[in-house]
Amino acid sequence: MTGLGKLGEFGLIERLRQRLGPAPAEVALGIGDDCAALQLPAGEQLLVTCDLLLEGVHFRRDWTDLRRLGRKSVAVNLSDIAAMGGTPRQLVLGLGLPGDLSLEEFDLFLDGFCAAAAEHQVAVIGGDTCRAQQFLTVSVTAFGSIAPNRLLRRSGARPGDLLLVSGTLGDSALALAQLQRGEQPEDSLLARHLDPTPQVALGRALAECGGVSAMIDLSDGLLADLGHLLEQSGVGARLETAAIPRSKPFARLTAGSEEGLDLALAGGEDYELLLTAAPEARDRLQAIATQIGVPLAVIGEILPEAGELQLLAADGRRLAPGHRGYNHFARD
Amino acid sequence: MTGLGKLGEFGLIERLRQRLGPAPAEVALGIGDDCAALQLPAGEQLLVTCDLLLEGVHFRRDWTDLRRLGRKSVAVNLSDIAAMGGTPRQLVLGLGLPGDLSLEEFDLFLDGFCAAAAEHQVAVIGGDTCRAQQFLTVSVTAFGSIAPNRLLRRSGARPGDLLLVSGTLGDSALALAQLQRGEQPEDSLLARHLDPTPQVALGRALAECGGVSAMIDLSDGLLADLGHLLEQSGVGARLETAAIPRSKPFARLTAGSEEGLDLALAGGEDYELLLTAAPEARDRLQAIATQIGVPLAVIGEILPEAGELQLLAADGRRLAPGHRGYNHFARD
Repeated sequence: MTGLGKLGEFGLIERLRQRLGPAPAEVALGIGDDCAALQLPAGEQLLVTCDLLLEGVHFRRDWTDLRRLGRKSVAVNLSDIAAMGGTPRQLVLGLGLPGDLSLEEFDLFLDGFCAAAAEHQVAVIGGDTCRAQQFLTVSVTAFGSIAPNRLLRRSGARPGDLLLVSGTLGDSALALAQLQRGEQPEDSLLARHLDPTPQVALGRALAECGGVSAMIDLSDGLLADLGHLLEQSGVGARLETAAIPRSKPFARLTAGSEEGLDLALAGGEDYELLLTAAPEARDRLQAIATQIGVPLAVIGEILPEAGELQLLAADGRRLAPGHRGYNHFARD
Repeated sequence: MTGLGKLGEFGLIERLRQRLGPAPAEVALGIGDDCAALQLPAGEQLLVTCDLLLEGVHFRRDWTDLRRLGRKSVAVNLSDIAAMGGTPRQLVLGLGLPGDLSLEEFDLFLDGFCAAAAEHQVAVIGGDTCRAQQFLTVSVTAFGSIAPNRLLRRSGARPGDLLLVSGTLGDSALALAQLQRGEQPEDSLLARHLDPTPQVALGRALAECGGVSAMIDLSDGLLADLGHLLEQSGVGARLETAAIPRSKPFARLTAGSEEGLDLALAGGEDYELLLTAAPEARDRLQAIATQIGVPLAVIGEILPEAGELQLLAADGRRLAPGHRGYNHFARD
């Protein structure tokens, strides 16, 4: 095969190191020792999140190029930092490389990973590189920082709060459904699935403005992630399905079928932000979203009854929930 | 199969949470939100390390029970914290679970993981749980803390320093070699391979006493890890192979064969500490090791010539290095 064997583990790590710019001041010790060492901003908390991307479960190598996989590995983690309102700071990359992966593919992955990190001014501080049996294995741990009084948890939603969502939902899931059917998705939809954009600037601005009561990112699907937020807040919600924002390509391709609603409600991998806020904060939040250039739509309201979820159709009828979002194990 | 499918991702995470005690004060937010949030001790640096344990590469399910795999997943990461002289603080666990893994095996893994974390007073703060194709995938990120002026890097060795190593070397590699030959290793050797003990107390005490110039943990094998230390310090070393400490079972089983020296030099997975120190610090370091109950042996000396490695046999002859330690890719 490949030059991976010849280079060895330390040669591969060196290839990563060569792509990185000078480390920012808070990285006291970067790649190359037993641990990295970080100096954290005084008075801030450290945010930590971790996501695995496993071949055959989260991605297929025949559906994505490795550069976009590298970018997505960063994005899905930064989306979790964004959902707390934090500023992304550092990344740790664990890679298990199967024998059939070429050096060119490895380089493409690093190109995408490092480019996405640089776009968000995030330092790559360490990791682990090893052989894997057959399947490419990506494990990313991301760090962020936030002032403790700005942290946006899932548990703060209160009855009467509005339910808002950023961007458009369902695009990623539609692209995946098309790939699974052997169809070629439109570029804009495919990009939502293979190269999602974490809403970092929006998340941080929302935390700074102070009007948001709870926030979560949408990775498992709107219904599933709304369920987490409601459960942890001990409240219910009314969701107006007609208000769920959809892109033009999505609306066109799903017109007249029930697939559109299913994908928007339960498709997953939107990497948008779902949040709650008191009605009087609405104008302020909308102004912030407009300034950042991300749509923010009101899609419902928080209800006092814990666990209650009312799904309303366009004509005001109540729908019964079908799929409740993507759940890895429930699909087995 | 298994109850994993029925429980779902969130049921599995709940099983982890149930095993954990109350979170220590520095964990502002533990498992269950988009991120964990940590409050760090003022004036200390954060140490970060990450290790993947992949089925078929790092372990075989027919050779280890899952409880010991859980323990080892903690140990190999804490060994990296120990090698900096740090105090382990938190763990993040990423798990990719293949369809044939039973709920009982999952529980055993968590039992071992959480028990090892508790033994070292380390909090489990978050992670990711998902399906995996065929192979069990474990990704652990560990955090520690240390006062910046105590951090022990690989790069501080100076000519004239003594080279010291903790514990005994080769036991883990001998057990693995026996498993690979279809033999049943003695319990004490098998435990070194399947359930290694990270030298956390020793590493921290050595950092606190101030006499150590460089330190690294032995995971890739003595020669490979010594090579990293020498390269980063820009020095060479003379290594007296007869002085490498070996356990009684190891000495007995490898007597009269060349395998013993190969395994001690290059077998890997010892998870002992290799360090350098000025000769005048020797008695102080030995006293600390005795107090902690871990042997510490002088096995050589640092030389001024960068990259020079002299391997001396018992009779003073120089040996040519054979294997230079485990390297995942070079073995492909």
